[in-house]
Amino acid sequence: MYVVLAEGYSGDVHYGKTARGVVRYRRDDVACLLDSTRPGTEVDGVPVVGTLEEALVFGPDTALVGVATQGGRFPPAWRALLRRCIEAGLDVESGLHEFLADDAELSALAGEHGVELRDLRRPPADLSVPTGENLRVPATIVHTVGSECAIGKKTVALELDLEARRRGLASRFVPTGQTGIVIAGWGIAVDAVPADFLAGAAERLVVEGHRRGGEEFLFVEGQGSLVHPAYAGVTLGLLHGCAPQLLVLCHLAGQTEVEGYPGHPIPPLAEVVELYERSSLPARRARVAAIALNTRALDDEAARAAVDEAARETGLPADDPVRFGAGGLLTALRG
Amino acid sequence: MYVVLAEGYSGDVHYGKTARGVVRYRRDDVACLLDSTRPGTEVDGVPVVGTLEEALVFGPDTALVGVATQGGRFPPAWRALLRRCIEAGLDVESGLHEFLADDAELSALAGEHGVELRDLRRPPADLSVPTGENLRVPATIVHTVGSECAIGKKTVALELDLEARRRGLASRFVPTGQTGIVIAGWGIAVDAVPADFLAGAAERLVVEGHRRGGEEFLFVEGQGSLVHPAYAGVTLGLLHGCAPQLLVLCHLAGQTEVEGYPGHPIPPLAEVVELYERSSLPARRARVAAIALNTRALDDEAARAAVDEAARETGLPADDPVRFGAGGLLTALRG
Repeated sequence: MYVVLAEGYSGDVHYGKTARGVVRYRRDDVACLLDSTRPGTEVDGVPVVGTLEEALVFGPDTALVGVATQGGRFPPAWRALLRRCIEAGLDVESGLHEFLADDAELSALAGEHGVELRDLRRPPADLSVPTGENLRVPATIVHTVGSECAIGKKTVALELDLEARRRGLASRFVPTGQTGIVIAGWGIAVDAVPADFLAGAAERLVVEGHRRGGEEFLFVEGQGSLVHPAYAGVTLGLLHGCAPQLLVLCHLAGQTEVEGYPGHPIPPLAEVVELYERSSLPARRARVAAIALNTRALDDEAARAAVDEAARETGLPADDPVRFGAGGLLTALRG
Repeated sequence: MYVVLAEGYSGDVHYGKTARGVVRYRRDDVACLLDSTRPGTEVDGVPVVGTLEEALVFGPDTALVGVATQGGRFPPAWRALLRRCIEAGLDVESGLHEFLADDAELSALAGEHGVELRDLRRPPADLSVPTGENLRVPATIVHTVGSECAIGKKTVALELDLEARRRGLASRFVPTGQTGIVIAGWGIAVDAVPADFLAGAAERLVVEGHRRGGEEFLFVEGQGSLVHPAYAGVTLGLLHGCAPQLLVLCHLAGQTEVEGYPGHPIPPLAEVVELYERSSLPARRARVAAIALNTRALDDEAARAAVDEAARETGLPADDPVRFGAGGLLTALRG
């Protein structure tokens, strides 16, 4: 059971990504959230407590770093909290850039108290380039890609996987980032691997997803965007390495510029569709089978209109699987 | 002065890349090559010796690992040689995946003998995402990209830079891989950085190239290929981060499949041109200005014919700058 360390958690799409994902998809494994700025409230039914002592009453065995600190590093206040978690006998899991286990002080303290420090973004030591095994995985590989970061690629993959399982299909979600790893309990954070081994890491993930039971469908979480000025390399390496037959393009309704990068436009949706298809591996061309539109900022009527407009603009099936359910998209994929 | 460790050097395009590059472009800094399999011969006028003792007669101060060992790691015979270099008082430079300085034994030995171990592929510790400074570099940024690995992207960038300097232009070669780093004496091996920071590393390189004197032209060495199943992520991150206005597309005449990856086609040249242009940063579209054709396998007449055919197929200026000189391509770039 987790106590999710969520100091200052605000629901901001970047800052609270891991806390939100784990509350949503591993609800039963979350004892409570720790956030001294709003004790006594709750997040999706999970109680928020203000102190570690109160959190311990819920009986967690693991503290999960649930928010993204500035630059992925641990400010002094966080270090103090992590020390107290370790001293309280909790294992600690973190998906930040800075690795807990490489910290001499925390590492020694963990040894003393017999707890484990798990760095979810640490790449496996034995990665290499792809071998071609990705093209031999006997399953339909669906990859959720995007026009932007943090608009729901992970969520869409999770919802499609849940819907496929509800229909009795042998399906698995394939995690490629820290939150996905917490949710699924396995995976590789592909953005943290040496760039040379991006595609090799992605290949390993689809091979493992198949072995773990994804015998009919694999839903591979996307990262970044081919038109994002910082992360497109990660996106393309993952796209090639996971070798999907089908893509679901995720887009935030109405967005025309990359967040945090003024002057960097998101091209029209039909152009983004074409870019992904043309960029796919020449040995296995991927086809965009559907648009997953994130309509979180709209009311129901406007959301319906935006979905219709996206379908019209691209000539593809479109839906918001979070708002309206993943059934329509899954049917389109099985098309 | 270098003794280049080139055991078993065969002229193979991958295996001897660093040895060949440094002999060609830093001839004056190479004392000799060490290769016990062919002592008494020479490579482009540089003597080859069979033992370290003979090499020391030439007065080197640094041993450079000049060949790519299997998997980028040091087999036992290599470790013995490296130990002997250190014991002889030589600094050691290496561009392999396995870092010398992380090896407890070699590192301790280097400390004992007061020599330096330099790992050319080790990423700077303070990398991050791009800031937008790449788009503000006031120079023409030319990036050599390719249809494949190891077909001359580095060489074409070096030859264009040399030709530009001959014409009195303020130009710099911008190294992005280990051999380029040895040749230029600075740079980052972008394929070794955490994937998240690919574009950020590339941005830093063009900013530094400009500061180092590339006030009119920067020729940025390309890596991999957008259609290579293992390395396309590196290629795209570099393409976005270095933010070129112009591209030179390098292609090996007649090649239609990725080397070592049977079943992975290289699309027709005109399609590769279009893919690079469409994949460039939406905020700064790059244009393929010329084709650099590698005609090493052809005789002069066939080479001319292949160059003409590439020009016809793409509608772009084409040349083999290694065989026929870089003048024509540079003129095309200044268009």
